Amino acid sequence: MFNQKRIRDYGIEIGQLETGTRNAITDVEGVTVGHVTLSRNEMQTGVTAILPHRGNIFKEKLIASSHVINGFGKTTGTIQMKELGTLESPILLTNTLSVGVTADTVIDYMVKENPEIGRTTGTVNTVIGECNDMFLNDIRAKFVKPEHVLQALENTASEFQEGTVGAGTGMLCYSLKGGIGSASRLIEMTHGTYTIGVLVLSNFGILSDLLIKGKAVGQELKTAIQESYKEEDKGSVMIIVATDLPVSERQLNRIIKRSVTGLSRTGSIITNGSGEIVIGFSTATKIPHDKPEKCMAVPQIHEEDMDLAFRAVGEATEEAVLNSLVTAEAVSGRDGNERPAFKDLIEKFGISLK
Amino acid sequence: MFNQKRIRDYGIEIGQLETGTRNAITDVEGVTVGHVTLSRNEMQTGVTAILPHRGNIFKEKLIASSHVINGFGKTTGTIQMKELGTLESPILLTNTLSVGVTADTVIDYMVKENPEIGRTTGTVNTVIGECNDMFLNDIRAKFVKPEHVLQALENTASEFQEGTVGAGTGMLCYSLKGGIGSASRLIEMTHGTYTIGVLVLSNFGILSDLLIKGKAVGQELKTAIQESYKEEDKGSVMIIVATDLPVSERQLNRIIKRSVTGLSRTGSIITNGSGEIVIGFSTATKIPHDKPEKCMAVPQIHEEDMDLAFRAVGEATEEAVLNSLVTAEAVSGRDGNERPAFKDLIEKFGISLK
Amino acid sequence: MFNQKRIRDYGIEIGQLETGTRNAITDVEGVTVGHVTLSRNEMQTGVTAILPHRGNIFKEKLIASSHVINGFGKTTGTIQMKELGTLESPILLTNTLSVGVTADTVIDYMVKENPEIGRTTGTVNTVIGECNDMFLNDIRAKFVKPEHVLQALENTASEFQEGTVGAGTGMLCYSLKGGIGSASRLIEMTHGTYTIGVLVLSNFGILSDLLIKGKAVGQELKTAIQESYKEEDKGSVMIIVATDLPVSERQLNRIIKRSVTGLSRTGSIITNGSGEIVIGFSTATKIPHDKPEKCMAVPQIHEEDMDLAFRAVGEATEEAVLNSLVTAEAVSGRDGNERPAFKDLIEKFGISLK
Amino acid sequence: MFNQKRIRDYGIEIGQLETGTRNAITDVEGVTVGHVTLSRNEMQTGVTAILPHRGNIFKEKLIASSHVINGFGKTTGTIQMKELGTLESPILLTNTLSVGVTADTVIDYMVKENPEIGRTTGTVNTVIGECNDMFLNDIRAKFVKPEHVLQALENTASEFQEGTVGAGTGMLCYSLKGGIGSASRLIEMTHGTYTIGVLVLSNFGILSDLLIKGKAVGQELKTAIQESYKEEDKGSVMIIVATDLPVSERQLNRIIKRSVTGLSRTGSIITNGSGEIVIGFSTATKIPHDKPEKCMAVPQIHEEDMDLAFRAVGEATEEAVLNSLVTAEAVSGRDGNERPAFKDLIEKFGISLK
Repeated sequence: MFNQKRIRDYGIEIGQLETGTRNAITDVEGVTVGHVTLSRNEMQTGVTAILPHRGNIFKEKLIASSHVINGFGKTTGTIQMKELGTLESPILLTNTLSVGVTADTVIDYMVKENPEIGRTTGTVNTVIGECNDMFLNDIRAKFVKPEHVLQALENTASEFQEGTVGAGTGMLCYSLKGGIGSASRLIEMTHGTYTIGVLVLSNFGILSDLLIKGKAVGQELKTAIQESYKEEDKGSVMIIVATDLPVSERQLNRIIKRSVTGLSRTGSIITNGSGEIVIGFSTATKIPHDKPEKCMAVPQIHEEDMDLAFRAVGEATEEAVLNSLVTAEAVSGRDGNERPAFKDLIEKFGISLK
Repeated sequence: MFNQKRIRDYGIEIGQLETGTRNAITDVEGVTVGHVTLSRNEMQTGVTAILPHRGNIFKEKLIASSHVINGFGKTTGTIQMKELGTLESPILLTNTLSVGVTADTVIDYMVKENPEIGRTTGTVNTVIGECNDMFLNDIRAKFVKPEHVLQALENTASEFQEGTVGAGTGMLCYSLKGGIGSASRLIEMTHGTYTIGVLVLSNFGILSDLLIKGKAVGQELKTAIQESYKEEDKGSVMIIVATDLPVSERQLNRIIKRSVTGLSRTGSIITNGSGEIVIGFSTATKIPHDKPEKCMAVPQIHEEDMDLAFRAVGEATEEAVLNSLVTAEAVSGRDGNERPAFKDLIEKFGISLK
Repeated sequence: MFNQKRIRDYGIEIGQLETGTRNAITDVEGVTVGHVTLSRNEMQTGVTAILPHRGNIFKEKLIASSHVINGFGKTTGTIQMKELGTLESPILLTNTLSVGVTADTVIDYMVKENPEIGRTTGTVNTVIGECNDMFLNDIRAKFVKPEHVLQALENTASEFQEGTVGAGTGMLCYSLKGGIGSASRLIEMTHGTYTIGVLVLSNFGILSDLLIKGKAVGQELKTAIQESYKEEDKGSVMIIVATDLPVSERQLNRIIKRSVTGLSRTGSIITNGSGEIVIGFSTATKIPHDKPEKCMAVPQIHEEDMDLAFRAVGEATEEAVLNSLVTAEAVSGRDGNERPAFKDLIEKFGISLK
Repeated sequence: MFNQKRIRDYGIEIGQLETGTRNAITDVEGVTVGHVTLSRNEMQTGVTAILPHRGNIFKEKLIASSHVINGFGKTTGTIQMKELGTLESPILLTNTLSVGVTADTVIDYMVKENPEIGRTTGTVNTVIGECNDMFLNDIRAKFVKPEHVLQALENTASEFQEGTVGAGTGMLCYSLKGGIGSASRLIEMTHGTYTIGVLVLSNFGILSDLLIKGKAVGQELKTAIQESYKEEDKGSVMIIVATDLPVSERQLNRIIKRSVTGLSRTGSIITNGSGEIVIGFSTATKIPHDKPEKCMAVPQIHEEDMDLAFRAVGEATEEAVLNSLVTAEAVSGRDGNERPAFKDLIEKFGISLK
């Protein structure tokens, strides 16, 4: 993963389960991630695209589910996802005021890829997640343009950067710079080994609440800095969960709900401020857009297999948040607002994470 | 169905789809219904049991779902049904204040049938629905005893009575006597012919709102009677939907939600008063209590097959409500309260239903 | 209301309650509606804007709620509405593929009106509803541009047209032309007289299902026409409910849910096809954007007052759907596709509605 | 609180906010708690009653809300609580198979207290929560009888015991003895100081997951013990949240949802096993059973006041779970099954909690 120093490189291992090869959401076969980063002066924002598989997602939909931890947010596409239990488009992340243009561009992209949309078949549901990066970014300027959205889709690959990148460019985490983070876990069942991968766009929390594997690093750091950070939490995080585990929409929903355990263990109290929303999909089953002659047979695990998946998603979420924090670079943006990088601060003040 | 005169015997055909053989919930293979009727003076109540299949329902669970149209009710067991998507016990209907004793008795029944409960496996979720029959029944006296619950379970059969029977003994429908009603529809798809069956426990509505296939029979009847019925609606109805259609819990939920269209077409405005709750199950898949070695393959229809099921459940619900009304007998109960039978009134006043 | 012939002008009175002065959603004091109609050849679409009150809706939010009847739709803004129970922007309706551009434009509009957004306060939640008008409109061409959205907002007034207008330009209802319809009801309580107004964007149903006050007018018309209309239902309807009744978000949700009774009584079986979504707001309470020093005191009715509101919303929805049908004009659009006007057909074939 | 050694007595302070006088749910004015403990050989179970206020709760209802963290449970009464937003009975906790008899007894209790139930007014909604104590208790024997339920109601007081008591008698927590625990927090706003109190019935978790203020005490203890505890987690916890904060049902729901942060910080991964359900109520507003002439004015905080309440409920839940663990006594019960007390083990093995 681009030689960035991640939380494990600090000797911190979260949980008990093994990670996938990249320890990232792209360990789930077929999942790719792409960024466009817009970083110059008061422009500190961007777009991150997640492609759920390499085929035509509109024609081969995936079982999907969303969960609202805190609904003070503007994510689109969840109504249809809940009704039909499927995802039929890429997932895009960006800043709050760019959700409209991003949705509009993904509509164009899908319409172009699928000539039957609006002709011989219906329309398409797009899924756009967001956090508010107004502290560092001039969000009113709406820097994200259609070409950035398309570029992010084109940039998708198995390897991707974390931290101050893509939609994460202007985001904060525990009052420091945050952004994109990822992690994954392997789960072994009698019928196979599966992967659960998580990608977060972190933008929540106040420094004094930050816990790293239970250690109150945030308080220690706050004391060391002796600065009074404006710690108002707008509390936003997008959590994307991918898996190849065969599950029904109901089962997937149970799994993605458990991401809150990992989030809580980094210190979050889930403040009022903004949206904390989880979107999950499973690549195990492809639901055809066109009705087949026969009934489908959807593979799914027994409920007693669930606990391992619950543990995995909690661990991966906790680690993904920490990865977003430790990989982020310092940014100074709108009106001279700036946020330091966690990694610079702990080096400067000699804070140990263990 | 016991030679009772049903709505079709008045020449009223609801909807477009064909009915099953009995035109009842028991047209779904394996489903049986049993009543215990407690009718004497101020005791006008009872119990109705629905067995979802003839095997051990705890060991072979069915995919199930519930939907709350109006939650002013005390139905139990829906939390677990939603989380796990399964039904693992019979469904019992009774009066509101007898839910406790009924749940307690079904627990005893399940524990006896399954020696591993509370020993080598966990506990059991029981599903009890209710309406409030206090107008005709001395509900405070709690006439329902454990033996009645067990008897209702024992009485289950493919043929069953409608109207003033079982849990329906003391219930009202559009200010007249109501109670138990049922109907079914066949749906033909490319991969097979399926059945959707509905059973209602009707206890809602005011006379002037009653519609029969669009005709304002209720207003006509009210004018004819020239009596001022106390028309306060406590608005309660339990709707049980059974099918052999292969569906996921999410799909089943979509189907059972459509029961409200049939309910509305009989004239209901869904008043504040009491619970309007739908419980559905599909016999197409048996989910084993014990975890199998391999993944399960759950058969399910494509979403494009849904419309026929939606139409079926609406039609069957509308007809089941009307069947509950036209089969009911006049009752006089608590404190001299009485409710006439619809069939007696239309004969007396020469009201045509067409 | 612009001298259009509405369902009451055919002698059809729906329900028991009195209507407001205009028998429209704008009978709720302060509510205004504006359209932009784009109708030329294969362009048959538009935008409809609903302003909830005449002040600054971002600074003085209204208690609001949404309800999903069928979630096969792309409405935005409901997650935050559910979490916070408030509406803070106008409501816009358009075609499905124009949701992105419409959201983006409303963001611009709100940002311009409120300089503190993205600076001293957070972002804004926009609410865009949609139906799919692809049969008559070349929806892939995305004819709706930002200026149309702004124009619709500017056109808002107490008087507005129904039928083939605004977002309703290319919509179908019961396989004929549909579009915008509205109606209202007065409800008298001991503490005051209140208004419930409904506006629908109708785009659902097959002709043979159409009922007018219980009469199977659709089947009669279908027989008369002797044409085989393509009757596949994409099933979409947006329902906007406004009231000045003092209610909590929970109470408002209970009220708007009852719109389904009116919908069902026009014949809908709520097909799989597209979104049927209800959005409601109450003008009785203004929730300040900025935190006041003291607790708020939110006026609300007692639950026992609910039934009248339930009846009102069902009646107004039923009448609004019928108004959308009888006011619509014939349209021929994309690829020579055309839909006749209900009013022309009943005249041509001499169909009586009573 | 009965001189039991609680987590603070070990020098562990959870969070930043001040506690109430008792650091218990009964710090919320008017709330009382009562237990009946049934502990002898294979009988290790009981009942815990929470009275929300000292008046007639049926006639003066409280705004209330429930939240399902994991729905593998049998709690009753939540459907009506969600629909009407009120609590109208005491809350009872017991073992899973005793929910029926407990509901039945509370119905009797309420009917006796309120002669108008079932006569001049409708019925009553009872709220019974449960966990499964089958490891230590012969749950099939159903030891809880009506007199125990009534006794628990009678025993309610401001001071109450924690640990192996009442419904907690046979429960496990992190594979050790668990049961009843409580804590509270004070929150200061510009318009007053309020209290949030939490009571938990803990019955979840495996030892190796246990965290105390971030320290992996569970793993340390497991290593020390060198015993292989059967660590299968049936994952159940009931969380009761009381407050005097003026809130709407929607706001209360937001608050009680945050209990999961505290739960997670003790190490829970929220396993499949059993129900994790939260029930909350606010004593700030009494909703009269009988409709008043005028509208009500319900006091409620502004959404911007929420964060303090979110922090409080997370802290109090975390501390309540730990209190349930450290106050519990060792129990040996059914079939020689036994669970040690946490306090005995840490003393024996010299484990430090800090």
